Amino acid sequence: MNFASDNTAGIAPGILEAIAQASRGYALGYGNDDLTRQVQQRFSALFEREVAVFLVPTGTAANALSLAHVTPPWGGVLCHANAHIVTDECGAPEFFGGGLKLIGLDGEDCKLRPDAVQAAIARYSGHVPHQVNAFSLSLTQATEGGTIYRVDEVRALADLAHAHGLAVHMDGARFGNALARMNVSPAEATWKAGVDVLSFGATKGGAMAAEAVVFFDPKRAEAMPERRKRGGHLISKHRYLAAQFDAFLADNYWLTLARHANGMADRLSDGLRKAGLQVVWPVEANLVFALLPEQLDQRLKAAGAAYYVRRAEMLAGNARISGGGLLARFVTSFATTEDDIENFLRLIQNG
Amino acid sequence: MNFASDNTAGIAPGILEAIAQASRGYALGYGNDDLTRQVQQRFSALFEREVAVFLVPTGTAANALSLAHVTPPWGGVLCHANAHIVTDECGAPEFFGGGLKLIGLDGEDCKLRPDAVQAAIARYSGHVPHQVNAFSLSLTQATEGGTIYRVDEVRALADLAHAHGLAVHMDGARFGNALARMNVSPAEATWKAGVDVLSFGATKGGAMAAEAVVFFDPKRAEAMPERRKRGGHLISKHRYLAAQFDAFLADNYWLTLARHANGMADRLSDGLRKAGLQVVWPVEANLVFALLPEQLDQRLKAAGAAYYVRRAEMLAGNARISGGGLLARFVTSFATTEDDIENFLRLIQNG
Amino acid sequence: MNFASDNTAGIAPGILEAIAQASRGYALGYGNDDLTRQVQQRFSALFEREVAVFLVPTGTAANALSLAHVTPPWGGVLCHANAHIVTDECGAPEFFGGGLKLIGLDGEDCKLRPDAVQAAIARYSGHVPHQVNAFSLSLTQATEGGTIYRVDEVRALADLAHAHGLAVHMDGARFGNALARMNVSPAEATWKAGVDVLSFGATKGGAMAAEAVVFFDPKRAEAMPERRKRGGHLISKHRYLAAQFDAFLADNYWLTLARHANGMADRLSDGLRKAGLQVVWPVEANLVFALLPEQLDQRLKAAGAAYYVRRAEMLAGNARISGGGLLARFVTSFATTEDDIENFLRLIQNG
Amino acid sequence: MNFASDNTAGIAPGILEAIAQASRGYALGYGNDDLTRQVQQRFSALFEREVAVFLVPTGTAANALSLAHVTPPWGGVLCHANAHIVTDECGAPEFFGGGLKLIGLDGEDCKLRPDAVQAAIARYSGHVPHQVNAFSLSLTQATEGGTIYRVDEVRALADLAHAHGLAVHMDGARFGNALARMNVSPAEATWKAGVDVLSFGATKGGAMAAEAVVFFDPKRAEAMPERRKRGGHLISKHRYLAAQFDAFLADNYWLTLARHANGMADRLSDGLRKAGLQVVWPVEANLVFALLPEQLDQRLKAAGAAYYVRRAEMLAGNARISGGGLLARFVTSFATTEDDIENFLRLIQNG
Repeated sequence: MNFASDNTAGIAPGILEAIAQASRGYALGYGNDDLTRQVQQRFSALFEREVAVFLVPTGTAANALSLAHVTPPWGGVLCHANAHIVTDECGAPEFFGGGLKLIGLDGEDCKLRPDAVQAAIARYSGHVPHQVNAFSLSLTQATEGGTIYRVDEVRALADLAHAHGLAVHMDGARFGNALARMNVSPAEATWKAGVDVLSFGATKGGAMAAEAVVFFDPKRAEAMPERRKRGGHLISKHRYLAAQFDAFLADNYWLTLARHANGMADRLSDGLRKAGLQVVWPVEANLVFALLPEQLDQRLKAAGAAYYVRRAEMLAGNARISGGGLLARFVTSFATTEDDIENFLRLIQNG
Repeated sequence: MNFASDNTAGIAPGILEAIAQASRGYALGYGNDDLTRQVQQRFSALFEREVAVFLVPTGTAANALSLAHVTPPWGGVLCHANAHIVTDECGAPEFFGGGLKLIGLDGEDCKLRPDAVQAAIARYSGHVPHQVNAFSLSLTQATEGGTIYRVDEVRALADLAHAHGLAVHMDGARFGNALARMNVSPAEATWKAGVDVLSFGATKGGAMAAEAVVFFDPKRAEAMPERRKRGGHLISKHRYLAAQFDAFLADNYWLTLARHANGMADRLSDGLRKAGLQVVWPVEANLVFALLPEQLDQRLKAAGAAYYVRRAEMLAGNARISGGGLLARFVTSFATTEDDIENFLRLIQNG
Repeated sequence: MNFASDNTAGIAPGILEAIAQASRGYALGYGNDDLTRQVQQRFSALFEREVAVFLVPTGTAANALSLAHVTPPWGGVLCHANAHIVTDECGAPEFFGGGLKLIGLDGEDCKLRPDAVQAAIARYSGHVPHQVNAFSLSLTQATEGGTIYRVDEVRALADLAHAHGLAVHMDGARFGNALARMNVSPAEATWKAGVDVLSFGATKGGAMAAEAVVFFDPKRAEAMPERRKRGGHLISKHRYLAAQFDAFLADNYWLTLARHANGMADRLSDGLRKAGLQVVWPVEANLVFALLPEQLDQRLKAAGAAYYVRRAEMLAGNARISGGGLLARFVTSFATTEDDIENFLRLIQNG
Repeated sequence: MNFASDNTAGIAPGILEAIAQASRGYALGYGNDDLTRQVQQRFSALFEREVAVFLVPTGTAANALSLAHVTPPWGGVLCHANAHIVTDECGAPEFFGGGLKLIGLDGEDCKLRPDAVQAAIARYSGHVPHQVNAFSLSLTQATEGGTIYRVDEVRALADLAHAHGLAVHMDGARFGNALARMNVSPAEATWKAGVDVLSFGATKGGAMAAEAVVFFDPKRAEAMPERRKRGGHLISKHRYLAAQFDAFLADNYWLTLARHANGMADRLSDGLRKAGLQVVWPVEANLVFALLPEQLDQRLKAAGAAYYVRRAEMLAGNARISGGGLLARFVTSFATTEDDIENFLRLIQNG
């Protein structure tokens, strides 16, 4: 009953096998190997256009490198106040970006809405050189609340951003979970809707440690190799990063894994609701947030259930939430089993 | 016949097995897992004192984080002009260090000598606040030239550094190779000789992607967790970093692997000398540098031998080198076989 | 009728004279001159304790250097959302601070209140190393709204900050205006109330370009010389910075100038109120904010009155403000005359 | 007898007068005033083309902002090992440049020669993304040794730089001294010879604190306003920076002042040579370096003469220097009188 995070799961079997397979013979380091080239082609095929791809070991690195690349040090990044880049990366975007400014905005269901973005663009435009101006927009897909941006929503926000010269970044640490929920192609969910650069996560989806920065316009990637290297994020035995993505992308393995995780979240949220608990946001990916009475929380923890309680501030801007209790977050993964869910729900009900 | 780098080898079998073993069940992320704790204890046992350890995925990260931690942005790092941090990390130390300055010094056999360090300390002291002052000394062990600092040499340099308030960093990307050559303990080779912080490499030694920053005085590590996280170097499924080191350190596996690599280098250098080629520096680790006539170089490459030719500037400060030819670097690893060596030597002789 | 800013005024006569006086003969550069030493003593006398003083040419430099000095790159600075450091310094604190984070809080009358600061400290504490933690608190005295913190208010906020390990910075670009209003000593208004480092402004008060960073505990100033130099803020002919402060501080000239400016603001705000306009915040320094009907604004501007209209967002967190109109800011200075005020008020009334 | 630096002199009378004149009435801050516009036009007229000009208070700021603007954080700046940016700015270029690397080269007479630059470009090109590559070249005019680059020398170096994609910066802290010596126009000495951006110094030439960054292609200046502001170098009462340059440039005042300083240096060096002392480098600006016996040095200092002794390392790469003694630097300025020189020479001879 471990719902602490999708990173508490291990490596998905297909990916572990790929790592072992990749270990045969010699291969040039730093990405100059055949497997890396093959993965680059996979990405271009997946997105139906030539893309520039940079593999890195962490999501924080992918986000920070991306944002630093499309935002000058005197620029601001518009994002949700609950975004991982704001709350959980210890200032990595600011560090890589030479002191750029993250501008956290409120929004229902952990999602940015056009009116809030429009207002922020208006506020963070002009008064140069005194005021930091907005240079980019970062969307989290799926969001920290487990909700997702539908293609039309992404497009509306991206159009707004582009109309004012902002670049559009997508933090796709759980991109697979979002895509598995929607009936659209990766291309439709990203560049066709206006995304300029994507942090494509594999770690939470089942890899060991593998994330990709994807530039949909390869020309935009100029000097990204230097940026990655200088950040210490160019893995020397690069074939192992490539191997993880190779297996992840092959035969839609990533979507299969994500679909399973999403299904487990659906099952969990159904059960929680049936048990009379309020599920906070629409469950659209592999995250379930629910309000737990403190006593129940204590009982569950005592019984060995693992999950995190999040700060109530995360609910800011969500008028519809009522009722008290702790804000508990449950994360499912490719490794979550139906038994995990059933045991946990039984535990709740047998109070 | 791949001597391009020790990172062209794959993963040593024992480490690959450990990764697979670690993949069972759930484990908390970000280093809050049992295996990580076990590895921390292994390091303390290995060094015969309590140490603070931070695992990261690349050697560049280990070096840059270490140096930034012991050098203020207005400080200088004394190091050899051929050091990896100077020539191959794309300014990572400067980036992590907020603009610190690497001060590359010459020295025979890619090694720093006390007189050069003393002179540099004198030069980079005082004239505050106008001049960058030296705040740290970085030694590469084994060096980029494949030579090693004997314990007495480390101590002489460290004493000199400490006498002037400089911290002592050791870039041990090939620490195993150095130690395998000397009949001393890890403690004797490091903190007992005056090293304050060590980049302890495993990747070149046989791991997939695992390096450790080791502070011999744990108090010195304050705020290193934030620094690592903010650099994007806190791996979420941290158990896999731990697993690599767990296997690497167990039963002196790291030394066994390094001893093999060193032995292959010895065999190769013997053969090269017998073939009449000049081996440039003493062969003390797993690197062999030799001067190759251009024609021979072309013939070897045409026959499929893989190795790099380095810039002649690397020879600066080595009066004893004479004779022309390209400066070829051959690197052996745990994966190098006697056949690899024999085939290559035969290729040279059958010219 | 120029109320655009206190920096549209020239140099106060006594300071201009001091610059001319200082220009005789030779003096060592970079602060190694007698006048600089004399000014340092003046500061210590003024604050009734030995302080460490660093003169710089701009308020942005004073703030950014101060904040960077007391906040690590992974730290946050709590401040009012309207603070100059947030809205008007183009990210200077983030730049000098290596990517630190400014955390803007709301508060009535542009002032921080203990409950908001307490909540922010709670929010930005812990969850290390993932979350940026609060390391400092910055108070603006007088505030951007022209209000001031009374000594008890400073003490309450500083005590709160210190109880949680935060350093306390005061942005005193208009410190003179604040002090001229209160019947307290500079010591009481600063270190005795808990301020650790002060940006003591002279430029807005009548100098040409002179600000001082004052550390009340000189030990805290270690390495500030390097930080200032490296920021390009060590003026070579330093005696001219010193000369400005020497005249500014002598015979309470700074308070005389500030008292005049404050008096002009009082007179202006009285007149505006009598003319039926809403004055937004208590007028306690040399700033008057009033809500102007658009038509009036146009008429005043057409008649040559100079002042700025500020973003309505500046009113956030001020429940008591009602009524529409543009948020106009009028700034008085040592150079403002009674005629300036009377002419302007007459212009309003003769609509 | 103060030859410590040209910054030990005060303000030239014409400039002091201009500061006083500028102090009448109101003027918008931050460069939005008439005098600033007038100065911008003066610069364009002076250089015979439209230029973009940014005034700042220090030479370190001018250099650091310029270099950061034309060099990415992963880039290198080729410059002389004795350049002020290397030895005396406490890492300001590295700080403003996000960790860029200064690459100091040797060269006779403190001047860079094409062969050394060519070799450095070759060395710092390629091996991307591992090695920092050269992105700019910085020439000091006049040099730290008091020598100057003739127009043909600048052109040869600039052509070389441009041929490899490097930008060309000129540190003209003593640009006036260089120009006063040569019979060429400012345009010929800069952009016509290939300079892209110039730090045009006025402080050492007689101003209080005023330097200009001049971009000869205004398009290259994009985002420089933000960079300057964020560095804390946008002076609020900007008219006083403008006033200094207005007077400095009017009627060739700057050249008149520089010519005087140069003449005093000539007179001094003649006298030193006649006294049997070795003058180290050709005296072409307002700096004279001579080798002084230690005893003489002690006697001069005891008699109240002010000058600095520089590190012998400054002589590196100057084969022609022989003989021992301390390396003494004497700097003349607009304020140096013939009496100063005669008194000093008499002191030497009356040993």
